[in-house]
Amino acid sequence: MEQTKRTDVNTLGEFGLIEHLTSQFDAKHATTLKGVGDDAAIIDIGNNQIMAISTDSLVEGIHFDLAYMPLKHLGYKSVVVNLSDIFAMNCVPKQITISIAISNRFSVEALDEFYEGIKKACDFYNIDLIGGDTTSSNKGFFINISAIGFGQKDKVAYRNGAKKGDLICASGDFGGAYLGLQILEREKQLYLSDSNIKPDLEEQTYLIGRQLKPEARKDIIEQLDQVNLVPTSMIDVSDGLASELFHICKESSVGAFIEEKAINIQIEAQMMALKFKLDPVTCALSGGEDYELLFTIAPSDIEKIKLFPDVAIIGEVVDKKDGIKLHTTGGNIHPIRAQGWVHFEP
Amino acid sequence: MEQTKRTDVNTLGEFGLIEHLTSQFDAKHATTLKGVGDDAAIIDIGNNQIMAISTDSLVEGIHFDLAYMPLKHLGYKSVVVNLSDIFAMNCVPKQITISIAISNRFSVEALDEFYEGIKKACDFYNIDLIGGDTTSSNKGFFINISAIGFGQKDKVAYRNGAKKGDLICASGDFGGAYLGLQILEREKQLYLSDSNIKPDLEEQTYLIGRQLKPEARKDIIEQLDQVNLVPTSMIDVSDGLASELFHICKESSVGAFIEEKAINIQIEAQMMALKFKLDPVTCALSGGEDYELLFTIAPSDIEKIKLFPDVAIIGEVVDKKDGIKLHTTGGNIHPIRAQGWVHFEP
Repeated sequence: MEQTKRTDVNTLGEFGLIEHLTSQFDAKHATTLKGVGDDAAIIDIGNNQIMAISTDSLVEGIHFDLAYMPLKHLGYKSVVVNLSDIFAMNCVPKQITISIAISNRFSVEALDEFYEGIKKACDFYNIDLIGGDTTSSNKGFFINISAIGFGQKDKVAYRNGAKKGDLICASGDFGGAYLGLQILEREKQLYLSDSNIKPDLEEQTYLIGRQLKPEARKDIIEQLDQVNLVPTSMIDVSDGLASELFHICKESSVGAFIEEKAINIQIEAQMMALKFKLDPVTCALSGGEDYELLFTIAPSDIEKIKLFPDVAIIGEVVDKKDGIKLHTTGGNIHPIRAQGWVHFEP
Repeated sequence: MEQTKRTDVNTLGEFGLIEHLTSQFDAKHATTLKGVGDDAAIIDIGNNQIMAISTDSLVEGIHFDLAYMPLKHLGYKSVVVNLSDIFAMNCVPKQITISIAISNRFSVEALDEFYEGIKKACDFYNIDLIGGDTTSSNKGFFINISAIGFGQKDKVAYRNGAKKGDLICASGDFGGAYLGLQILEREKQLYLSDSNIKPDLEEQTYLIGRQLKPEARKDIIEQLDQVNLVPTSMIDVSDGLASELFHICKESSVGAFIEEKAINIQIEAQMMALKFKLDPVTCALSGGEDYELLFTIAPSDIEKIKLFPDVAIIGEVVDKKDGIKLHTTGGNIHPIRAQGWVHFEP
């Protein structure tokens, strides 16, 4: 008997696996403007209008730990991470569907708490909950949310539009959510070793808030609209600034040059990184879950972007052959790695 | 310390739980024409066009058993059950997103097989796969699919439009998928008791096919369009004919009178029901997973519906106060129960 080949799913990596599984599918409808491979899919609905749809799963034990994630926050965050994908297309989210699979260890009261968080996010972001599915699981809590948004066909910001000479911009600050997670993990371990130890979270409201209650950058999309500025490319920062930069460069066939000193890292994050003996810039580049927007604009739009209160120009788009590099505060130039920046190249 | 109240999720039932969790949400956008509570949500996209979106989860050990469900069939069925929801709104599905969470017991080759089934369904139903999410789970296989369809605003068939005097119509036949499942379960138990026993599935292709490879009734939607017939209400049969009839009656505030002899039950299903000592009509009413369409039409459309090769008129919409009843072949009248028909009322 011939032996069946068995390739471990981890060998391809998440993006490699998705590419492998979906490469055989081709678009049959002219209205499908963008399928797999961006923050959201884009469908043409006529009259220069498009619909954007994104979908994201959150799995207990993989994406969240109920030991320190209150259910209300989990509900809120589940919505926010999906809305962030719609904003990243320069679209406005309007509806969501939510499907959950739960084991019988969850009570109606626990679900009420979770839905309270969902409702809070829907109210804040002006979103209608329009459907979903509620089912059982033998073990664990699985969440799948789809977000639906709308925008103008000629204003959609894909990942593949960055051009040499464009300015690289980033909203907000980086590394905070990752460091918030490190604090929560540390306190969990301390609690597991001695349940009399009270968690020491009091002074870390900012970092823990970045992890437990992130916000999507609705304000940036509104500001872009106000000054009539369309980014040449855009992506939201869920996996880390470096990883998202690689996506834009790959899809746009360009390189990038980033100024270390331009990357916004809050003082709380800098202090906490040092406390954990981590490099703050590595936390900012590779931490993830910041849900900020990374985008590129034409150099002629520089005067417009300067008016944005919470956007920094962090670098410039360069030729593909020049790679993706970081200009350090110390004056050195290092290649950036997708999964983190390596301080000392061999 | 006050004791926290704990209500088991099973006390409310699936539909009760969804109603409980979503009742606090109200629609903020005028474009949200239908939210939770139909086969799909409906969004107004202008120019008398609407978008329909449905979402469904399939959980290993709850909705499918990999002991007898080949992964390719699982992929195919996962798509079909979602498309069925879009057809049930009298819309044409065009795109899907698919999210999966898998444990490392699944190989790339296993996923290839699953996606082969998905591709087969996409090719057959003319669907674009436009996105999704692929993530890990600690245990089990979770699938969530969203289907997107389009239609005309004035031709959408909701659940709430049935009127007294309307004719109740059903496509195809009933009970087959349920009996197919009973055969597969029986063979699994036999195999578990003695692995030398070969499964005896040869003669039951029809029933097993209804369970493992259901089809959605695209043809019925096309025929409705051809003769310009818009059902006054419509639903797809996933939970059983009786349960779906109750949804239509509840949403439309009407009753129903069903003729037992008009319910189409294939001879294979009748024979197998008797073999399992089950009542064939109970299997048809309560079996589920037939993925047929149940709909109502104005009495003036009777000549049009007679031309449909695979649609039967099975009853009539009556006053709400007259309840939901079955006129048996023997000439008796029994109330129908949502979860199955009770032969002998006390």
